[in-house]
Parts: sequence; C-alpha cells; structure tokens
Amino acid sequence: MGHIASPPLPGIIGLLAFRPESAKPLMALTEQLLRGPSPLTSTERELIAAAVSAENACRFCYGSHAGAADALAGVDDYVKNALAAPASLSAKMQALISIARAVAKSGTAVSDALVKDARDAGATDIELHDAVLVAAAFCMFNRYVDGLGAITPDDPMAYKMMGKQLADDGYLTAIG
Amino acid sequence: MGHIASPPLPGIIGLLAFRPESAKPLMALTEQLLRGPSPLTSTERELIAAAVSAENACRFCYGSHAGAADALAGVDDYVKNALAAPASLSAKMQALISIARAVAKSGTAVSDALVKDARDAGATDIELHDAVLVAAAFCMFNRYVDGLGAITPDDPMAYKMMGKQLADDGYLTAIG
Repeated sequence: MGHIASPPLPGIIGLLAFRPESAKPLMALTEQLLRGPSPLTSTERELIAAAVSAENACRFCYGSHAGAADALAGVDDYVKNALAAPASLSAKMQALISIARAVAKSGTAVSDALVKDARDAGATDIELHDAVLVAAAFCMFNRYVDGLGAITPDDPMAYKMMGKQLADDGYLTAIG
Repeated sequence: MGHIASPPLPGIIGLLAFRPESAKPLMALTEQLLRGPSPLTSTERELIAAAVSAENACRFCYGSHAGAADALAGVDDYVKNALAAPASLSAKMQALISIARAVAKSGTAVSDALVKDARDAGATDIELHDAVLVAAAFCMFNRYVDGLGAITPDDPMAYKMMGKQLADDGYLTAIG
C-alpha cells in the first residue's frame, strides 16, 4: 500500500500526477541526464540508471530503465545480460558501472582507484561527471518511489511497455 | 583533490560551472523543492536537507543548507541546536525528520509506523510527499558533491555566507 493517496498509477507516474509542481523540474532533469547531449549514449546512461536501481533494490526503477535500455539497444534482456556478464561491456563502461555502484553506497565511496580505473579505460572528465550524476539522481528516484510506497507492478510486460515508451518518447511526455 | 578538472569553486558550485547543461535543471528542481509553494516552510525544508546531509556525512551540503536555514530562521546555529535537541521542534517536524533519515538509508526504510507517527502529529499527504522528495533529492546532491570529490571549505564563515546568499536569493542565481 502506498504511504500517500496518490493516483493509482505505477511507480513514479502516480507521484508525478499527485504533485505536478515537482513533476515538471524532475522530468526536465531526467530528460537532460538521460537524453541530453553527452559522450555517453542514452543506452549507456539507462544502463547506469538500471544498475544503480538494482543496487538500491528499487524494482520499479530497475524494471522501467532496464526496459528503456533494452528498447534503445534493440536487444531483449540487454541490461540483465550486461549486468550478469559485465565482460561483454567495454572496459570503460565496466569501470563507470563500478563507480555508479560506489555512488549508491556513498559519495565518498568513489575512490581515487575507481576513478583511475575509469580513466585508464578511456573515460573523460565529462563521462565521469555524467556517470556520477546519473547514479546520484537514481539514488534520489529510487528513494522517492519506494519512500512513498509507490505501486510496483509484478508483470514483466508492464516494464517492457514502459521502457519502449521511454525509449520512443523520452521523459517530458510523462507529464503530458 | 577533486576527481575531475572542474573550476576551483566550493562544492556543487564548481560542478555546476563545469556542466551548465545539467546545472540548469538541477537548480530549477532545487528552487522548486526548497522555495516553491509547499505547506512546509523553506526553513523546514532546509532543515530536512541539512538533516539528510548530516546523515550522509556530506559536509558541504550540511554546512550550506544549515547556513540557509539559520539565515531564514534568523537564529544562529538554528539547525545545530534543532538536531541536537529535537524536542525543541514540533512533533510533526520531529516525525518528518525521522522519515527523512529513513529515506537516507533506503526508500523501503520508510515504514508504515514512521508514516503513522507523522500523520498522528498532523502531517498531510503533501507534507509527507515533500519531506520524502526533499530528503531523496539530498541523497542525490550529497553523492554528486562527494562522488566527484568537490571542494569542501573548512571555514565556518564560508557556509554562513553561502547560507545567507541562498536565503536571500534562492537557487536560480547560483547559475547566473
């Protein structure tokens, strides 16, 4: 059961509908972070979002952003397979995902050694910045969704459909 | 030392200058969450931001938002004293701060019992929503700042001055 009387829509969608005043800047931020210009592709940024959501055990955010990354990559279970067998990813993405998982624990868990690994694998300052900020943002979204007890669908098809929509339309349409 | 070559400005200010593309939606969100219309006062929301930053051991965010709350309240050490002696706060604010601290741990740590305590003390759905979202947002900002090893001043006067500026001018001026 949800902690507040928000509209009975899945996950963050119900919360955005409950409080449109915060929905607008939240979705503008998400659009910028996951779809705006970056040397990291949208698929890579959605993968980071899904990896952090898994680390924070947020089923709604994991499912919807894994769905978005799968749709963007055009590969079923792209995220599931990438996280289960990281060696299939570039060394740079492996290192950035390690940094993102550290961010999920604490900002100070991002060690010089983790940053050096990413740089050795070719990561630039902007890539490090964007990976840390996307990871940090999902530490917010995961807590927003689960902290208010938002609805978490069980049906995998629901996430596949939401992911497809996020891949096709981005985040600004989520608020009309 | 910072993890990236951002301008040598304190805390998030250097990161915002490094990546203006994300600075804009980040500060629009902060302005909405801490200064926009809410049944919680800006002082109360800054207090929640400071409490979460303390929980996440983010010295920069704690210092600057405690400074903002002190300036808004017009009381030196308002936040320090409030967090040291919570009985000085309303029962509602005590309960909302307990929820915010749970959010810092995990979204799922916000239990039905914590929500019931807040409701029994008079918290409404919108107050619960806004407290959880502010707390979640600072789990992002704390990780953004410390995850990139941003500059953390030692001088208490720096935080007092930043707090005064945030109280007077809000968050949109931080990006010019």
